[in-house]
Amino acid sequence: MHNPEVPETLEGWSVLHHMYRVHWATLRSLSLQAKQDLAREFSASTAAENGASSCVHLLGHKADLMLVHFRKSFEELSQTQLAIQQTRLSEYLEMTTSYVSIVELGMYEMTAKIHQQLAGRSLKQGSEEFDRAFDEEMNQQKNRVMGRLFPEIPARRHVCFYPMNKRRGESKNWYSVPFERRGEMMLEHGIVGRHYAGRVTQIISGSIGFDDWEWGVDLFADEPLVFKKLIYEMRFDEASAVYAEFGPFYIGLQFSPNNLLTFLEGRTPDL
Amino acid sequence: MHNPEVPETLEGWSVLHHMYRVHWATLRSLSLQAKQDLAREFSASTAAENGASSCVHLLGHKADLMLVHFRKSFEELSQTQLAIQQTRLSEYLEMTTSYVSIVELGMYEMTAKIHQQLAGRSLKQGSEEFDRAFDEEMNQQKNRVMGRLFPEIPARRHVCFYPMNKRRGESKNWYSVPFERRGEMMLEHGIVGRHYAGRVTQIISGSIGFDDWEWGVDLFADEPLVFKKLIYEMRFDEASAVYAEFGPFYIGLQFSPNNLLTFLEGRTPDL
Amino acid sequence: MHNPEVPETLEGWSVLHHMYRVHWATLRSLSLQAKQDLAREFSASTAAENGASSCVHLLGHKADLMLVHFRKSFEELSQTQLAIQQTRLSEYLEMTTSYVSIVELGMYEMTAKIHQQLAGRSLKQGSEEFDRAFDEEMNQQKNRVMGRLFPEIPARRHVCFYPMNKRRGESKNWYSVPFERRGEMMLEHGIVGRHYAGRVTQIISGSIGFDDWEWGVDLFADEPLVFKKLIYEMRFDEASAVYAEFGPFYIGLQFSPNNLLTFLEGRTPDL
Amino acid sequence: MHNPEVPETLEGWSVLHHMYRVHWATLRSLSLQAKQDLAREFSASTAAENGASSCVHLLGHKADLMLVHFRKSFEELSQTQLAIQQTRLSEYLEMTTSYVSIVELGMYEMTAKIHQQLAGRSLKQGSEEFDRAFDEEMNQQKNRVMGRLFPEIPARRHVCFYPMNKRRGESKNWYSVPFERRGEMMLEHGIVGRHYAGRVTQIISGSIGFDDWEWGVDLFADEPLVFKKLIYEMRFDEASAVYAEFGPFYIGLQFSPNNLLTFLEGRTPDL
Amino acid sequence: MHNPEVPETLEGWSVLHHMYRVHWATLRSLSLQAKQDLAREFSASTAAENGASSCVHLLGHKADLMLVHFRKSFEELSQTQLAIQQTRLSEYLEMTTSYVSIVELGMYEMTAKIHQQLAGRSLKQGSEEFDRAFDEEMNQQKNRVMGRLFPEIPARRHVCFYPMNKRRGESKNWYSVPFERRGEMMLEHGIVGRHYAGRVTQIISGSIGFDDWEWGVDLFADEPLVFKKLIYEMRFDEASAVYAEFGPFYIGLQFSPNNLLTFLEGRTPDL
Repeated sequence: MHNPEVPETLEGWSVLHHMYRVHWATLRSLSLQAKQDLAREFSASTAAENGASSCVHLLGHKADLMLVHFRKSFEELSQTQLAIQQTRLSEYLEMTTSYVSIVELGMYEMTAKIHQQLAGRSLKQGSEEFDRAFDEEMNQQKNRVMGRLFPEIPARRHVCFYPMNKRRGESKNWYSVPFERRGEMMLEHGIVGRHYAGRVTQIISGSIGFDDWEWGVDLFADEPLVFKKLIYEMRFDEASAVYAEFGPFYIGLQFSPNNLLTFLEGRTPDL
Repeated sequence: MHNPEVPETLEGWSVLHHMYRVHWATLRSLSLQAKQDLAREFSASTAAENGASSCVHLLGHKADLMLVHFRKSFEELSQTQLAIQQTRLSEYLEMTTSYVSIVELGMYEMTAKIHQQLAGRSLKQGSEEFDRAFDEEMNQQKNRVMGRLFPEIPARRHVCFYPMNKRRGESKNWYSVPFERRGEMMLEHGIVGRHYAGRVTQIISGSIGFDDWEWGVDLFADEPLVFKKLIYEMRFDEASAVYAEFGPFYIGLQFSPNNLLTFLEGRTPDL
Repeated sequence: MHNPEVPETLEGWSVLHHMYRVHWATLRSLSLQAKQDLAREFSASTAAENGASSCVHLLGHKADLMLVHFRKSFEELSQTQLAIQQTRLSEYLEMTTSYVSIVELGMYEMTAKIHQQLAGRSLKQGSEEFDRAFDEEMNQQKNRVMGRLFPEIPARRHVCFYPMNKRRGESKNWYSVPFERRGEMMLEHGIVGRHYAGRVTQIISGSIGFDDWEWGVDLFADEPLVFKKLIYEMRFDEASAVYAEFGPFYIGLQFSPNNLLTFLEGRTPDL
Repeated sequence: MHNPEVPETLEGWSVLHHMYRVHWATLRSLSLQAKQDLAREFSASTAAENGASSCVHLLGHKADLMLVHFRKSFEELSQTQLAIQQTRLSEYLEMTTSYVSIVELGMYEMTAKIHQQLAGRSLKQGSEEFDRAFDEEMNQQKNRVMGRLFPEIPARRHVCFYPMNKRRGESKNWYSVPFERRGEMMLEHGIVGRHYAGRVTQIISGSIGFDDWEWGVDLFADEPLVFKKLIYEMRFDEASAVYAEFGPFYIGLQFSPNNLLTFLEGRTPDL
Repeated sequence: MHNPEVPETLEGWSVLHHMYRVHWATLRSLSLQAKQDLAREFSASTAAENGASSCVHLLGHKADLMLVHFRKSFEELSQTQLAIQQTRLSEYLEMTTSYVSIVELGMYEMTAKIHQQLAGRSLKQGSEEFDRAFDEEMNQQKNRVMGRLFPEIPARRHVCFYPMNKRRGESKNWYSVPFERRGEMMLEHGIVGRHYAGRVTQIISGSIGFDDWEWGVDLFADEPLVFKKLIYEMRFDEASAVYAEFGPFYIGLQFSPNNLLTFLEGRTPDL
């Protein structure tokens, strides 16, 4: 049964963020050849038939290296995690934090539109016909947005990752706001985002039931300043100002797994 | 004396969740034979005359391995915990967190019904006759739901565990809401859950007096996406939207203790 | 001067809870004889002319062993703490947390009664005669409740310890509620507790100025389920529902210091 | 310019609290002679031309040893901190926490009085004459209270240290309350404190801009029970009940740096 | 499009704060010559063509050494971080925390003025002409304040660093306050700051999207007492009293990287 208060969501890649601190003191003592072997074995451990893994050099103390894994299922994420932990490089890495989620498109507008259409076709909410017609529509939607559910990892230099919640405060509670009002706020929120189209690529993933916040946000851009401008401007729209809660922020420079050796040698690797 | 504001509860298994980080770097250097010996001794330490223990490979940094123990008493949980700590494998494990609870069925509907029935029989609340009749009814209930108080651990691939509270905020306080209103909210909450019957198996355990949250929730499903769908939909019902507080979430893949060796070798074991 | 808003308290034992994680991996390699020596020296270090020390095997990751020390003064607690830290067993123990407090009886009813009596004798609050008469009454009380101020550690199998505060929220603030209203709530709270008399033994200690919460609560029972039932029922009375804040919970099985060797061998020791 | 909403403050000693955990297991293996050498070198490192350092044996797990340093400036605190870290004893110590502050006298009454006096002399707030006259008055005050700005460390057995804030909640906000009303509350707060004069010696230090709370409070007394009585009674006055937020509490027994060797041998040293 | 609710900001240096604990016990055993080599290599690793790095000896346990790096881009911050981690001295350092930000000038007054001017020229908000004219004005501003966007690190002895947020509470929410009202509060806030001009040099950096708080604040002064006076006085203006949230405070003594050897020898180095 389709609950009219609950916006439909479409899901794509299973996602795992791994953040690692590097034990530079012991790594530094290895020869170039040894590092090359470590890098090669490590890159192989992250190879995937479907999906991809990307590397990010993080600024600050939270971690040195963030890996972002896109896979077809949690089974494959489990295999990747275990494979990485069996590499020799992992002896020089300490996983400090992580994030488990699934790429998600929230469909406020679409949910409302389908409900309207089906009401127009005189289908009654809660009836079997309604639900069947609803699912058909959603499947069509899913085909149309396949590229956004299973995107490539954007090849842009800077990456910003943070988890977030919708507030469930005692007087301001997102989950007690009527569907229509929430839809309006998400629309306004989306309009701000669209001003930054081209300059920022955004991938939202849902983590309810998987991790300690409700969503994960990955932003990719050529220039990091645009992250600050975008998130600051959004902070004034109602959906964020009143209802958003933000977790820790991770900021860094993306680089190709092929350039891992450069990183292990202590130099900033190319994208 | 039966306090009419307090819903009755029925209790079953004593439950202990153990979460462990694996020291892969040192474990990896062992021979297959040595790992086999570790796995055999470890599995033996979790064997139980009554009850069972299950293994879960967790995604992310919180832990690698979650053990879920169902036992007849805290005495047996104590024995199991100490037995595991004496195994040789435990030298390669670091317990990062845990959860102590008892399988619990909350009986809002039943409590209300018995109170009504006994009032119909002209028994006065607080009288000895009332209490004796009440206890008799509850004992009959207990026999009827024995299978739900002492369930087997569901043999489904994905496991989601999280602790939760009912909010005791300054203006929204579950424990200040009248019994009847709480009962209505729990009923609505249950209806959402029933839409997922078949796709998700749920085991609730109570932890007031035992651990830092009020309840622990274990969900079992073939597909992990259903966890997100279920918990997201529930987040809009009043009992959750307004009154639920959630602790950390643990997500992973269940596997048989018989397949522990595969896990120790760094590959995802079968269910 | 006796402030009529402040309930009088009577104090007894100085109390120190020590929670330790055991380093089983290294301990396990010792011979039975060596463990016996460790156990004997350790037990001797906790011996006290006045007061007592008890051992609890805790379930879960917070700690393996909780020691509860009752002593005549903080001087003696200091001596005990230092003596334990000089034992050889302490090399295998890591203190993960602790709690400092003094056994306390809160006297809402008594304070009110004495104020009334003295008013009846036409003594004026704040006068020297009033204060002298007040102190006399309190001293008589103290003699009457000596056994509750300096109790033995109850010889029951299960122990539950947790710290708690009275809430000082922006709208719900215990310390802004008038004395009389607080007294009524404490009375109601006490009535719930009395239903469990016989099944649970409770020792309250005050920790304002000594530790991070305002009170510590130790509960002792033969069956652990009664902890959950008692605390859950209390959660619905106003003093708890609206004004109580709870810290972490510690649950375990009490055993005699004479049985420490069994514990060190990795088996659940007898009470 | 003197802002009439801001109470003037007078400042004295620069203060540094250092809390250390002792590594007893390794320390214990040293000979008496070796410990004597460590103690002598350590005591020398804390010697100061101006000011003093004191030792406290803390109860519980937070730390074993608290050093309280009073110095003329942050330069001298820096020198002391570095000198201690170069001693051989510091290899057996782990600094677990600390607190940076400056002895402070808050002058609500005095500020109000001077404002009144100057208004009586027809000096206009914000004028240069007003400010000059104000500074003159404050300098005279400073001379009068020199002994309280640069006190000796009180030679009393028990020490209680905790940091605190004035609340800045959404509805209860100390910094939004008018000056006069704050002054009244501080007066009432002071009266409670004066009932304990003689039994407790209190040193307040300000830490805004220096550490994570706004003030540090050091209490010294012969009997520790008086800390609990004093802080509990104060908790009912409006300044504390509604506006105080408390950090962690540290409680212990003061001893002379000359008795450090006794402490290193694992026995409670004399004051 | 220029959102009239969002104040414009101008940005300068990319900033990275690194806080390190020093492992004095092992460092102390090195010869003077060895320390000199470590210091020289370390200082070289922080050299920058553009920008600068400064050293601060922190008081207390949070860290011993804070490095403040000003660079042209996150690329250069990445290079600096990796270069430092490859030095031999870094084996004796443990990064305990850090902060990532960009020097920022918030332009409430300027934003309002430009909006007014352009309205005076009959340019319509949201039109292309408006946006072009707006950007032109901002570029002129940027040229005027270049020195404040790319300042030198002030050569003053004492440094105070802390991160902060504007509150987004349920009833007090900075981001829901109209632009004009926010502008008034920032003006008042600035006036307090100007009373301290000369005595304190302040550098604000923005960290939305980069780190866990919204802004970082670095204060530099000859005397540390002025930090306490300034921040305390500001705490009473509405922008701070009602809307500011403060993170941890770091306080210490600045010294030249040329004097690093003195610090490594355990003595307070000169500015």
